[in-house]
Amino acid sequence: MKVAVVGASGYTGLELLRVLLRHPEFEIAAVTSERRAGQPIGEAFPSLRGLLDLELESANPASLAERVELAFTALPHAASAPVVRDVRAAGVRVVDLSADFRLHDLETSETWYGAHKAPELVGTAAYGLPELHRERIRGASLVAVPGCYPTSVLLPLAPFLREGVVETSPVLVDSKSGVSGAGRKLEDAYLFAELDSNCKAYKVGRAHRHVPEIEQEASLAAGTGVRISFVPHLLPTIRGIVTTIFLRTRAPLSATAAHALLTRAYADERFVRVLPPGETPALASVRGSNFCDVAAFPDEEGGGLILLSALDNLVKGAGGQAVQCANLMVGLPETSGLLEAPLVP
Amino acid sequence: MKVAVVGASGYTGLELLRVLLRHPEFEIAAVTSERRAGQPIGEAFPSLRGLLDLELESANPASLAERVELAFTALPHAASAPVVRDVRAAGVRVVDLSADFRLHDLETSETWYGAHKAPELVGTAAYGLPELHRERIRGASLVAVPGCYPTSVLLPLAPFLREGVVETSPVLVDSKSGVSGAGRKLEDAYLFAELDSNCKAYKVGRAHRHVPEIEQEASLAAGTGVRISFVPHLLPTIRGIVTTIFLRTRAPLSATAAHALLTRAYADERFVRVLPPGETPALASVRGSNFCDVAAFPDEEGGGLILLSALDNLVKGAGGQAVQCANLMVGLPETSGLLEAPLVP
Amino acid sequence: MKVAVVGASGYTGLELLRVLLRHPEFEIAAVTSERRAGQPIGEAFPSLRGLLDLELESANPASLAERVELAFTALPHAASAPVVRDVRAAGVRVVDLSADFRLHDLETSETWYGAHKAPELVGTAAYGLPELHRERIRGASLVAVPGCYPTSVLLPLAPFLREGVVETSPVLVDSKSGVSGAGRKLEDAYLFAELDSNCKAYKVGRAHRHVPEIEQEASLAAGTGVRISFVPHLLPTIRGIVTTIFLRTRAPLSATAAHALLTRAYADERFVRVLPPGETPALASVRGSNFCDVAAFPDEEGGGLILLSALDNLVKGAGGQAVQCANLMVGLPETSGLLEAPLVP
Amino acid sequence: MKVAVVGASGYTGLELLRVLLRHPEFEIAAVTSERRAGQPIGEAFPSLRGLLDLELESANPASLAERVELAFTALPHAASAPVVRDVRAAGVRVVDLSADFRLHDLETSETWYGAHKAPELVGTAAYGLPELHRERIRGASLVAVPGCYPTSVLLPLAPFLREGVVETSPVLVDSKSGVSGAGRKLEDAYLFAELDSNCKAYKVGRAHRHVPEIEQEASLAAGTGVRISFVPHLLPTIRGIVTTIFLRTRAPLSATAAHALLTRAYADERFVRVLPPGETPALASVRGSNFCDVAAFPDEEGGGLILLSALDNLVKGAGGQAVQCANLMVGLPETSGLLEAPLVP
Repeated sequence: MKVAVVGASGYTGLELLRVLLRHPEFEIAAVTSERRAGQPIGEAFPSLRGLLDLELESANPASLAERVELAFTALPHAASAPVVRDVRAAGVRVVDLSADFRLHDLETSETWYGAHKAPELVGTAAYGLPELHRERIRGASLVAVPGCYPTSVLLPLAPFLREGVVETSPVLVDSKSGVSGAGRKLEDAYLFAELDSNCKAYKVGRAHRHVPEIEQEASLAAGTGVRISFVPHLLPTIRGIVTTIFLRTRAPLSATAAHALLTRAYADERFVRVLPPGETPALASVRGSNFCDVAAFPDEEGGGLILLSALDNLVKGAGGQAVQCANLMVGLPETSGLLEAPLVP
Repeated sequence: MKVAVVGASGYTGLELLRVLLRHPEFEIAAVTSERRAGQPIGEAFPSLRGLLDLELESANPASLAERVELAFTALPHAASAPVVRDVRAAGVRVVDLSADFRLHDLETSETWYGAHKAPELVGTAAYGLPELHRERIRGASLVAVPGCYPTSVLLPLAPFLREGVVETSPVLVDSKSGVSGAGRKLEDAYLFAELDSNCKAYKVGRAHRHVPEIEQEASLAAGTGVRISFVPHLLPTIRGIVTTIFLRTRAPLSATAAHALLTRAYADERFVRVLPPGETPALASVRGSNFCDVAAFPDEEGGGLILLSALDNLVKGAGGQAVQCANLMVGLPETSGLLEAPLVP
Repeated sequence: MKVAVVGASGYTGLELLRVLLRHPEFEIAAVTSERRAGQPIGEAFPSLRGLLDLELESANPASLAERVELAFTALPHAASAPVVRDVRAAGVRVVDLSADFRLHDLETSETWYGAHKAPELVGTAAYGLPELHRERIRGASLVAVPGCYPTSVLLPLAPFLREGVVETSPVLVDSKSGVSGAGRKLEDAYLFAELDSNCKAYKVGRAHRHVPEIEQEASLAAGTGVRISFVPHLLPTIRGIVTTIFLRTRAPLSATAAHALLTRAYADERFVRVLPPGETPALASVRGSNFCDVAAFPDEEGGGLILLSALDNLVKGAGGQAVQCANLMVGLPETSGLLEAPLVP
Repeated sequence: MKVAVVGASGYTGLELLRVLLRHPEFEIAAVTSERRAGQPIGEAFPSLRGLLDLELESANPASLAERVELAFTALPHAASAPVVRDVRAAGVRVVDLSADFRLHDLETSETWYGAHKAPELVGTAAYGLPELHRERIRGASLVAVPGCYPTSVLLPLAPFLREGVVETSPVLVDSKSGVSGAGRKLEDAYLFAELDSNCKAYKVGRAHRHVPEIEQEASLAAGTGVRISFVPHLLPTIRGIVTTIFLRTRAPLSATAAHALLTRAYADERFVRVLPPGETPALASVRGSNFCDVAAFPDEEGGGLILLSALDNLVKGAGGQAVQCANLMVGLPETSGLLEAPLVP
């Protein structure tokens, strides 16, 4: 089955290509980039030399529709919406990696991201977290792949909210992310000399755009409104997110019970690994893979619960999750092309 | 004034030498290491070639007492206690960087660190955090320099506890530390190939030895028992700690009021820098310096308060703080030798 | 076809597992480790949880021979030889990743590596660099996979020696390697706090064990004795080697001619990528892949020639090259399981 | 003595401030930046909060001349020349850290750097490498601080050229530099996600602007023309340069003789440390300091000589060297403010 990557010159686009190149069924038939149209992909990304022999082209919906059945759109928010609309209108199914269709409420979306360019599509996309919305994704023609932070928060959190064993407000989250999460932005803050050997929080509390996205999905899982406090950090790594979540339990919760609850929730999931009690998720153990490792540490005496997770923001947090959704959409085995071992050491 | 560094072959010992080498009044007269006795210091630490012309010697209290007035002891916990006792008995004032004299309660100390080798001295040391215990340190002949995590937690936290504006239990802490905090340990976990591009939590909840230390000092500040939940992480950096603290406020607290409270608390402190509202502490801005940067982010609507801090674990978290204490003990200006600009970039 | 990884608990062993897990024909049927026998592989390497469900076992040649047709031995030098001998004797074909069978001359081998434990096999192994010895490897029952530095030197160098366009002595080589090349050694020098933000040369000139190996193969290519001067460095990275080679040309050599010579030499090779004139090989462009990127920069006026290369020491420098050899040995397509895109960024 | 830093908002400017802040005699009286004029220095560089209470101003030569006796100019090449000319004309002595006055030959300068904006001053500046040109610097009113690569090459190389024991062409140099050497440039190539875990050569052979500078000074030392081949690399570190130099000796040279030659050359130099035979210079051992560590490894049998060096490009390669020159110019002890211990670990 032929697919396109629209917006292939950023880090998410490159990661999609990496994942798709080893996919047994998807064939990359078109790659687009407005800035680099005409350039061979191996020139834009020397790592792909000898692996993919395509030229970057300008995105033309009609032309794409003639050549591919499904498109992955990896454009910045706001830029994505009109392209998604046109590509959909041309009859191509879309897995969108931007933030444009993640929020189901137009007002919330515009508060955080500005005027929406395709408001008629808001609320029509499936939220592309298969472990929470598998059936919805299967039938979808438009899937909005979650943000990397939300994936790292929702996978450990949702089972506890769903079972009603924790308080829903506040949910306190401290996340640490590699810099590729910010994309290929040319800003001072992302220079090597600024980031190496450094670590700092940013957009503290309720200032990060992923807050409403996490609250939307957490509230769905809880069946009631959830209020998040969120402290994201930049780590001196390229890839990966580790997340800590502090919760209050509604009744005493033992380590055994917490572990059992997680294990039950993810018994049939191939990409969520519940760690043995006492072990902590590590970036290195998921690097380059579609895994999200999770663990629970209740403080039975004090009434608290700490959840931890680790994932690769470019794979389970973006390109890998997108392909997982696409596999579901077209009826392939969900793990196709995604069971790569992490790159360790 | 002549001083000794006892246990000079670890990272804390090396950092003490670095700080002392630029001190205008202290002269390093003796450096000891049992494993490397007889070796010139420049051989053990090539960075010190041409700066310090001493031989490492075995620690002999009587001999030290003839040559120095004050000793910095930078030995592992348990190993430190008997040496401190003997050096004190020989009449030398001691700034101890181990954990042996930080906890004032013998039982707590033995629960966490095993049988104490100098129990008669437990409770006699001043806790060497000048911003909290300046007067006590001035008169002390034995000072126990705080752990690096406790310093990073107590400096932002204590003012809010002291003023009674926050709940005391639970205090939720998420810290991220460079690997030098673990000392020069030869363990798999500290190999470059295990740590680079990696980040993971360890000793989650109430498992880290710094928990009782933080609780002791936080409770003193609050005037009531404080219960900590603590998630330490290893960062892929050599130096530095950034800490997030999640609190509940007892009454609505505005950003202005929180900033004012911190500013008031540290108005006369040279080494605690209260950042302008909205700015976040960064490892890079304190690297190699004795500064601890702090900031407060209240969530007025939600009733929460987030505190952030950054310090260099080897300076304000160890060697620099030790020299700050020593300055106080001997009546020198507290900032002597300590106003170095951070190494940026 | 069932295969074993003998010595699976080091970095090379882990990388072999990673590569083999995506191989379409090889099935990992046994993994051995003397130190960790009895441990599930997912406990030894958390990254492999959910991917490989085997227990590490003690290496028993007879038992292995019943279960596998081919074994990859990833043991330290000297430890490898007797195991290779026994496994071979039991009828299993062997791809050996140690240094024990790379040198064809017993005396040279013993000078550099000490008394040989299976001297009768010295000289019988094919040198496992397919681009130089493909036919020899095809028929071999024992292949000695080259060292990582030799691979990075020989691939750019051999074509120029073979064509006789450069002087053979001295060949000056400056290499920079990630620390995983040293294996999982527990030594001070490999601690994160020693290596991060650091870079230094070691074993300068003719002191590194890879010198005789490079000279053996370079001399074969040149048809005459080649003398190497070699300066290896440790880089603050986990993976990768970049190499510079300084040569004198025998007659003026233009940039065009140098590029043509390389392109001709590697026209049919899938894993050696000759970069366009002016581009330089980068670690990042080969990370996690079996590629070796090469480039030539002649100084026509001055009579010099500079060659550059980059590879991932754990893939093309170890596990990937081993699988490439195994593919040849058993008649599979040489690229089976090896066309993974590099992990970028 | 009051001094100014002109162009204080780049990495070199920041490093000058760091060094000057601990200088016992120089007082920073003015800091300029065209882009950030009006901003408090602590806002531009959070690391300097609480240490320097000045506002960045636009550079006005007349106003500077009223307030300072000496100015450090840390502007990009071409931008520096006219400012230096005007500041000099106003009677202020200048230590210039740009490339504008390093080359004594106007034609060579314009070939590499474009039309010169103050050609009348070319050739009038002292080349600010005190170990080679101390007397010339003492009397100078304008000093051109060397490039970072040239310093790392010339310090180990000059003694051997001066004594005539090595061939002068070609001198083969392979250097590896931290990224701060490129300044605070906002280019894709300097992003963390491009550089971390990466290493690559650039401007290979004779393409780097430091080639004519090295050749100028090496030729002066040799008393004859020296031809350089140069391969610079970017390292995944912020600071530091390690350099390898390959030479041919004119007569057999023993390790002892090579070491003796270096030791003799630098017997009275405080900032050049000749390492004991067999030890190799490391970035970590000079980090943050004004030291340059050097070592020689002759291959007596093969007729080759390998020289190695390590320095911190922002200190001995820029800001520290500038202050060392300024100390000489105004008659202070050459080491004033410069004997800081390296930041290790």
